Amino acid sequence: MKRKGKAGSPPGEPAAGNGILSRRIFLEGALAAGAATAGASSAAAQPLAIEPWMKTPGVGFDAYGQPSRFESKVVRAITSPPNPATQGVGTARTPLELLDGIITPSGLHFERSHSGIPNIDPDRHRVVIHGLVKRPLVFTLEALARYPMESRIAFVECAGNSGALNAPKAAPLGMAAIHGLLGCQEWTGVKLSTLLDEAGVDPTARWVIAEGADSAAMSRSIPLAKAMSDTLLCLYQNGERVRPSNGYPVRLLVPGFEGNMNVKWLRRLKLTTGPAMARDETSKYTIVLKDEKSWQFVFPMEVKSVITRPAPGIALRGPGFYEISGLAWSGNGRIKQVDVSADGGKSWAPAALHGPILPAAPVRFRAAWQWNGGPAVLQSRATDDTGMVQPTRAQFAEERGLRGVYHYNAIASWAIDAKGEASNAYA
Amino acid sequence: MKRKGKAGSPPGEPAAGNGILSRRIFLEGALAAGAATAGASSAAAQPLAIEPWMKTPGVGFDAYGQPSRFESKVVRAITSPPNPATQGVGTARTPLELLDGIITPSGLHFERSHSGIPNIDPDRHRVVIHGLVKRPLVFTLEALARYPMESRIAFVECAGNSGALNAPKAAPLGMAAIHGLLGCQEWTGVKLSTLLDEAGVDPTARWVIAEGADSAAMSRSIPLAKAMSDTLLCLYQNGERVRPSNGYPVRLLVPGFEGNMNVKWLRRLKLTTGPAMARDETSKYTIVLKDEKSWQFVFPMEVKSVITRPAPGIALRGPGFYEISGLAWSGNGRIKQVDVSADGGKSWAPAALHGPILPAAPVRFRAAWQWNGGPAVLQSRATDDTGMVQPTRAQFAEERGLRGVYHYNAIASWAIDAKGEASNAYA
Repeated sequence: MKRKGKAGSPPGEPAAGNGILSRRIFLEGALAAGAATAGASSAAAQPLAIEPWMKTPGVGFDAYGQPSRFESKVVRAITSPPNPATQGVGTARTPLELLDGIITPSGLHFERSHSGIPNIDPDRHRVVIHGLVKRPLVFTLEALARYPMESRIAFVECAGNSGALNAPKAAPLGMAAIHGLLGCQEWTGVKLSTLLDEAGVDPTARWVIAEGADSAAMSRSIPLAKAMSDTLLCLYQNGERVRPSNGYPVRLLVPGFEGNMNVKWLRRLKLTTGPAMARDETSKYTIVLKDEKSWQFVFPMEVKSVITRPAPGIALRGPGFYEISGLAWSGNGRIKQVDVSADGGKSWAPAALHGPILPAAPVRFRAAWQWNGGPAVLQSRATDDTGMVQPTRAQFAEERGLRGVYHYNAIASWAIDAKGEASNAYA
Repeated sequence: MKRKGKAGSPPGEPAAGNGILSRRIFLEGALAAGAATAGASSAAAQPLAIEPWMKTPGVGFDAYGQPSRFESKVVRAITSPPNPATQGVGTARTPLELLDGIITPSGLHFERSHSGIPNIDPDRHRVVIHGLVKRPLVFTLEALARYPMESRIAFVECAGNSGALNAPKAAPLGMAAIHGLLGCQEWTGVKLSTLLDEAGVDPTARWVIAEGADSAAMSRSIPLAKAMSDTLLCLYQNGERVRPSNGYPVRLLVPGFEGNMNVKWLRRLKLTTGPAMARDETSKYTIVLKDEKSWQFVFPMEVKSVITRPAPGIALRGPGFYEISGLAWSGNGRIKQVDVSADGGKSWAPAALHGPILPAAPVRFRAAWQWNGGPAVLQSRATDDTGMVQPTRAQFAEERGLRGVYHYNAIASWAIDAKGEASNAYA
């Protein structure tokens, strides 16, 4: 039998201040006695109702299923201000606080578009490889689908994700508005190296310029070494063909690298000796430092984590047991450890990590917390297998300053008030 | 640099008869020279067209995304004959031949319903645990959501999947009709053991009867040992709340066990000394043997695999290089090896397996094949880490006979004709 806590004693042992419990609670069934306060109630005197949906047959089958109509509020948050030059510029952000696990439902995967979503006819679409190659090649979708494929679970994170936390004062923003430019899918496609091998890379080539078929012709420069290692031309996400808002009919996955390098609606790959200096790697997506110099071509998204529950809009219902749950990821490798704090970083305890732990993929972490009803500041701090640790906001500000909005990866905080409401805070 | 095949030589080395190539092709870039025949064409003389979708801005953002309208044929195959007693009885089957990776898109996950899909209001729904427990308990959805959760990627397979292959002659059926009662999601929920620990299991209890809140009150008996090990009450699939057709707002995941034990729309768990002998474990879901005796309570779905591409409806376009791709899974553990054959089982070569390789989860296997344009019979044969090997159809018939439709896991065959069309065959 599993080890259990004594009846009436707190569920699990304290592991850090303000109620963080040992992660052994997840392994040893130690929750048993204490968790009665988590929400179960005695069924002794309550006959189970026969609800109307048991009294008549349900509805029949759909060719393509959808979520329950009771979940109609679980949607992306759209920010797309009017633009005199075009339309569809902006973001649709993922409501991470309403999700669980590591896979993002495809319908809720975040989206960043620079000139709307093109309506591409896959029979007419072509992908060309040219520039410094021996044999320029053109691929139909049908041709691409004949090559050997590879599947991997990987995150894509916009370089601007969490950039709102550079503001001098903590704004009353929710999860999607701050951290919702993050998604994770099982991506399947053809290795770019397979196609580059076939085209025959010229020895002078060092970069691959990837161009999208949207009306912005969004373009990014990818180092040849990355293109030859693990970059995929994706035809599928979460099992089905890539969605229009995620790059239908074919997009790049550049594992771990900043979001817009994973070029959607891919039409062209040009091999060159130098980077393109495209608009989206010069006027945007550069890291402005505190001395007003900038870093360009910082590709991997650094180690990071965020608590998705509790979070703004997901109030606690009175003192008692709660699970703190969140996501941790690193563009540089695998997550090795996540620590959590309920006292704003004064004390920390390791969270439980739920495998598989994959490179450039999020990990779901979970920690047990006994909320005493008083104020708390919840934080998570991720460490990856290169040894990189998420910095505090002060450390991040000291190193880079807070002028930029890209690659913000400092520890984030949710303040819990006496009503159990969570809000964005700096701590 | 990667090792490459000589220009003009076949891509990779032969590994089994009728064109199966070494899986090393996936590891060593050996495809390069030969794969020009896979579909790429020279881009030298073809300027890349500026298609209409690049000339005008695309469309804006959707709160909840959908597949491209060019993919409108990628849907489930519905079989729901009229039933005088009720409605919504039957299946919606997954078009595995149009998908890739291991995750099934939630909108295409197979569905088996016995009296339609109930439209359950989550605020009114309750789950009760009673019978041989110290403290009968009742849970709201909100209460369930406060418990520690666990996520795992796992398949659910209907016990009747592939049962059509018990017919004396190979019928001209497609992928969904034969093998489409299989899905895989990332499932997230509360361990049943956590809740049973809280209720306090009576020492005399041996079984848990799980009942659904559909109008069939579909019920199955689960051994207590399985309930206490890895059974989950799932609130999420692929990141979002469970879909109505998959059990909204809460369903069981009984990893590796036959589909309908993973009770959808879960309302009741009763602990007992013996099984319920419910309709769906007596009149159905028993394994009729060749001597007309039956096996009852055979729970795990045995080791199995299926080639999803090529497949009926996915024709080859002339001789040349193709990837053979498929899924392998076992309810008893992890997949250890998958072999493929292009000559109806005369010779075999190991396929490449794409990780992570998880227990009770499908693995995507891939093999390289040089089709010479002649007839071929494609097969796959999975082995799990308990040492179980998928039987041939003859071995399966010899052991169990072909009277039953449940737990059919023999090696399946696709015959390829001279036009490149695939069809169901016995070999």
